[in-house]
Amino acid sequence: MQAKTPEQSKTILTDMVLPGETNPLNNLFGGELLARMDRAASISARRHCRHIVVTASVNHVAFSKAVPLGSVVTVEAKVSRAFKTSMEVFIDVWIEDRISGERTKANEGIYTFVAVDDTGKPVLVPEVLPETNLEKQRFEAALRRKQLSLLLSGKMKPNEATELKALFE
Amino acid sequence: MQAKTPEQSKTILTDMVLPGETNPLNNLFGGELLARMDRAASISARRHCRHIVVTASVNHVAFSKAVPLGSVVTVEAKVSRAFKTSMEVFIDVWIEDRISGERTKANEGIYTFVAVDDTGKPVLVPEVLPETNLEKQRFEAALRRKQLSLLLSGKMKPNEATELKALFE
Amino acid sequence: MQAKTPEQSKTILTDMVLPGETNPLNNLFGGELLARMDRAASISARRHCRHIVVTASVNHVAFSKAVPLGSVVTVEAKVSRAFKTSMEVFIDVWIEDRISGERTKANEGIYTFVAVDDTGKPVLVPEVLPETNLEKQRFEAALRRKQLSLLLSGKMKPNEATELKALFE
Amino acid sequence: MQAKTPEQSKTILTDMVLPGETNPLNNLFGGELLARMDRAASISARRHCRHIVVTASVNHVAFSKAVPLGSVVTVEAKVSRAFKTSMEVFIDVWIEDRISGERTKANEGIYTFVAVDDTGKPVLVPEVLPETNLEKQRFEAALRRKQLSLLLSGKMKPNEATELKALFE
Amino acid sequence: MQAKTPEQSKTILTDMVLPGETNPLNNLFGGELLARMDRAASISARRHCRHIVVTASVNHVAFSKAVPLGSVVTVEAKVSRAFKTSMEVFIDVWIEDRISGERTKANEGIYTFVAVDDTGKPVLVPEVLPETNLEKQRFEAALRRKQLSLLLSGKMKPNEATELKALFE
Amino acid sequence: MQAKTPEQSKTILTDMVLPGETNPLNNLFGGELLARMDRAASISARRHCRHIVVTASVNHVAFSKAVPLGSVVTVEAKVSRAFKTSMEVFIDVWIEDRISGERTKANEGIYTFVAVDDTGKPVLVPEVLPETNLEKQRFEAALRRKQLSLLLSGKMKPNEATELKALFE
Repeated sequence: MQAKTPEQSKTILTDMVLPGETNPLNNLFGGELLARMDRAASISARRHCRHIVVTASVNHVAFSKAVPLGSVVTVEAKVSRAFKTSMEVFIDVWIEDRISGERTKANEGIYTFVAVDDTGKPVLVPEVLPETNLEKQRFEAALRRKQLSLLLSGKMKPNEATELKALFE
Repeated sequence: MQAKTPEQSKTILTDMVLPGETNPLNNLFGGELLARMDRAASISARRHCRHIVVTASVNHVAFSKAVPLGSVVTVEAKVSRAFKTSMEVFIDVWIEDRISGERTKANEGIYTFVAVDDTGKPVLVPEVLPETNLEKQRFEAALRRKQLSLLLSGKMKPNEATELKALFE
Repeated sequence: MQAKTPEQSKTILTDMVLPGETNPLNNLFGGELLARMDRAASISARRHCRHIVVTASVNHVAFSKAVPLGSVVTVEAKVSRAFKTSMEVFIDVWIEDRISGERTKANEGIYTFVAVDDTGKPVLVPEVLPETNLEKQRFEAALRRKQLSLLLSGKMKPNEATELKALFE
Repeated sequence: MQAKTPEQSKTILTDMVLPGETNPLNNLFGGELLARMDRAASISARRHCRHIVVTASVNHVAFSKAVPLGSVVTVEAKVSRAFKTSMEVFIDVWIEDRISGERTKANEGIYTFVAVDDTGKPVLVPEVLPETNLEKQRFEAALRRKQLSLLLSGKMKPNEATELKALFE
Repeated sequence: MQAKTPEQSKTILTDMVLPGETNPLNNLFGGELLARMDRAASISARRHCRHIVVTASVNHVAFSKAVPLGSVVTVEAKVSRAFKTSMEVFIDVWIEDRISGERTKANEGIYTFVAVDDTGKPVLVPEVLPETNLEKQRFEAALRRKQLSLLLSGKMKPNEATELKALFE
Repeated sequence: MQAKTPEQSKTILTDMVLPGETNPLNNLFGGELLARMDRAASISARRHCRHIVVTASVNHVAFSKAVPLGSVVTVEAKVSRAFKTSMEVFIDVWIEDRISGERTKANEGIYTFVAVDDTGKPVLVPEVLPETNLEKQRFEAALRRKQLSLLLSGKMKPNEATELKALFE
């Protein structure tokens, strides 16, 4: 299985915020954005491994900026690192101003997917070869996040989480 | 402002998995479940503070079990801890077997909401008074999660994250 | 087949009124509420009998109070009486005020479901054991409603509708 | 205000049953059909009175025949009788066989709407002039249904329900 | 196979414009109207041939008038001409004023469908017998449109498009 | 107003085909694809002119290939030519095979949008500067299509349609 670059799994979903998706402040519902991010991220994971993929976890999503009704929202997803049968996908969300055309970062998120066969059994996925500096940073940090996730769910002991532990020393 | 118990903000959303919400394996899309959890959690946060609330972050969601088409899914949300203007909400998701009636835990998630006034400015929220053992555990762990979140976003230094640091000592 | 209490089939569906579901007065469409009530009621019927259920009739729904955009709506369904292969489900709908937290009854409805096997053939369902006074009243009235329904559809003659006839004597 | 015939408010909504609207037996959900019927009936009531209308009650809907996925469903609504500010609407639902083209009655329903002005206050509506035999029968029966509804909700005493009482004598 | 009149395939879809389907000017999205027209037109084609039908092309749709939120929209589709295995469907869209009840033409469109069997293979369809003057005009023009379509897609040479060529002489 | 290249208005909408959007052959409904294309094309037009845009017409859409359930569909839209206040947008639709990753052209379409201000009045838009060979071909052909459209709607006489007429000589 040949390794792939994050660019090869890049997936872009540009769409509008429709009136049926907004909260009482006329901004896009958080939950609706989470669902769009999941769709783009799962396509990205599928492009990386060419198998059916299922969402395994949402590691972190920070909503730093409201997305008003009528906005054009661009969700961009790339596989940031692969671990045997799972893939971490990094998702950047941008909104653009209608008048100036300026793009602003609205939020970002990290999802993990598992590749499965038609019976739902996990299958191996190709490795990731990061190219840009940002891709390399995200590749490195992915290991720390994996340890954190295992630690929080009780599947790893604190003294085994070497990457994390180093943060506090 | 009077403190409230998690029970006072408990919100239950029981609904079916409809055919339009399923992936190629005939299971509920992760993104669709994230959106349902966001709706239940935001109602819970709103019941706690009686203000408009906006999703600030999704701290963690682990999908441990697939949710098949036709399942009855129960999403149960309670505010686990409050921090000045924000609330952490714990969400448990159950599915039940049609024949035996047995309930199984499908996944759980933690979302954070901010209370705002009509102009979108943050406002203070009541404290949380945990009652059961599980509520107390989640209340305690919420502080650790908050430090972790501040740490990961660069808003806190590792040596200030006292709760987290203690884990590794 | 063991009889069950209405509490054992209780189903709660709490959700918001979204902008895509409202009429020109910014209130929830009647039809949309009918659909939500049907989903909650059918889950309740399914919990009672643990079979597939299909909607047989809507006996009565009175919309006594408008449900404005942004409301939190709680639909609560319980099986009120069983007749061989059919179940009458009583549905209460509440809305709550964001500021005061006060709950008001918005409307109520009565639906009938039939339990079927995988081929669509009706199957027997357990009896209902009402516990509270309200459950007992609804249990009693269910028989009158059934006679009325048979009478209106021409399947029963007026002089056989003993429960109903007694009303006019 | 000039009286109108049922034909003048006739409203036809022909549409397909889509995969997202079906239950585990691959038939249209009862609740989804109730919502379609409400939309057609409210347009019919609006055509009769030329005001905003709101659903007041669902008097009776009997689901006598399942509506399979892929069916063409025709919902036909006509105002059957008017009472000061309210209108009873009769709705017939037909499905047609793809091969033979034969139309079968799937179910029928009776909804009541109230005409309101922009502030939600009830306004007077024109009378109904039934023309065909079926329209005349439905016009007559509407009075009986209204008494029954008032009786069941406790707004009329049994001995005042003269139309109904006559049924049992 | 017996020829049919356009009246025999007439399909009416009357529905409201809901808040979730409107653009920033509070008018129905063009794309949403295209989808409604496709649903009505495909039912019309199916009624003509009694086979599964698939959309082959959209020949032309002109949006001459905006359709505001809350409008009642009537989509009326009739098969205008048949060509071996394909059918041209003409779709007229009307909106009506709530106060005056007056109907205005909002736009019209022309779609082409192909009849297929369960394996997706094209099958022969009945001919069309136009009756009214408008039906006859549309029947005639359909041939010109077919030539134009073949010409634009390179499947016919300009000098073979006799109907079209005549326009310029 | 500075001219822009088609690349500057390029808009990509990659998304899956969900079960709720498919016909009896398990392929994406034509109407649903028309709606997606309209959304992507209108964002492209808006990026070109930075004004509100409304769909004016659909010039031609040919569905050359079915889009099966579960497919990843990429809709790519670019402004191909501008005429005072209107813009022609060319839309290419691709599907990709999950196993091989190979992209196939599913269909293409041409939509026209008008730029308007907040009151719905048309406003001038920048010119288009085509760069690639394909962009130049589409830019040239746009004039022919415009004449054809004016001709078919009776707003231009055959002998004025010089570009079109040349085709037959």
